[in-house]
Amino acid sequence: MIWHSILDFVSLNRHPAVMTDDAQTFMELALTEAVQAATRGEVPVGAVIVNETGEVVAQAGNRVEESNDPTAHAEMLVIQAATTAGGSPRLENCDLYVTLEPCSMCATAISFARVRRLYFGAFDPKAGGVEHGPRIYNQPTCHHAPEIYSGIEESRCSDLLRKFFAKKR
Amino acid sequence: MIWHSILDFVSLNRHPAVMTDDAQTFMELALTEAVQAATRGEVPVGAVIVNETGEVVAQAGNRVEESNDPTAHAEMLVIQAATTAGGSPRLENCDLYVTLEPCSMCATAISFARVRRLYFGAFDPKAGGVEHGPRIYNQPTCHHAPEIYSGIEESRCSDLLRKFFAKKR
Repeated sequence: MIWHSILDFVSLNRHPAVMTDDAQTFMELALTEAVQAATRGEVPVGAVIVNETGEVVAQAGNRVEESNDPTAHAEMLVIQAATTAGGSPRLENCDLYVTLEPCSMCATAISFARVRRLYFGAFDPKAGGVEHGPRIYNQPTCHHAPEIYSGIEESRCSDLLRKFFAKKR
Repeated sequence: MIWHSILDFVSLNRHPAVMTDDAQTFMELALTEAVQAATRGEVPVGAVIVNETGEVVAQAGNRVEESNDPTAHAEMLVIQAATTAGGSPRLENCDLYVTLEPCSMCATAISFARVRRLYFGAFDPKAGGVEHGPRIYNQPTCHHAPEIYSGIEESRCSDLLRKFFAKKR
């Protein structure tokens, strides 16, 4: 696993015209999905998958409450949409943006899909599976770890969650 | 988490007439799903969810290849089917039978769904997430661990996988 600071990743861009590495832009889109999820009464988490030419191939917010499906996390929904639409269970040249640190279910799915880079916003000490808990990508049995960029628009992503749960109380 | 030997669980049956705890019977059904998965070119893993009255509420085999979806493991499919059909993201009084030790994605989904008991067949030292790798239910951040019964029809479950992969080589 390769860890970069937020300042490093712009230089990785091989397609500057299409903003492949414009993390803020894609995280903005993920945040929009998170806000929409909140209006549906869902925990506000949004995700986006972007291919190597900078095209958004899938975007979604949580749908757990709406679908009564505990697996309907934003990351799962975009992986399912992008892989089935792309005709391959692998997203080797794609990057995934998500407003919250993925849980161990989603982190594993990201690994199975061979996602190239994972950008996430807020950290999740209670249920995260990347930098917390089972640290899925650090497991010797993990066959693929994406490059990880964490803390992208962190305060906006976490504020959204904080306000949502404050209202629920 | 409570661990039982295969000899313990028959005594847990509160509904003897409907075979709630007839693990062999339900694992047989999961094996049938696994065999059917193999005929579709899928890794032969099958799963079944049974409610507290012994009714099978969902059954499925892997669909990763067919759907090009890396998350389409048998366990995920039955959880998605049972929760959406039941109108609740929780399966608190249900048991899940699967022919192979769940990976960390599926183990986490099983926890999210609050599955009561998990019965699995073959052990998976390479990719399992229950007794191997991240040991999801042993994580301090895991909020719900099912009761676990492992090694049910183990040799038949693992033979099926071994033969499938031998043919692939």
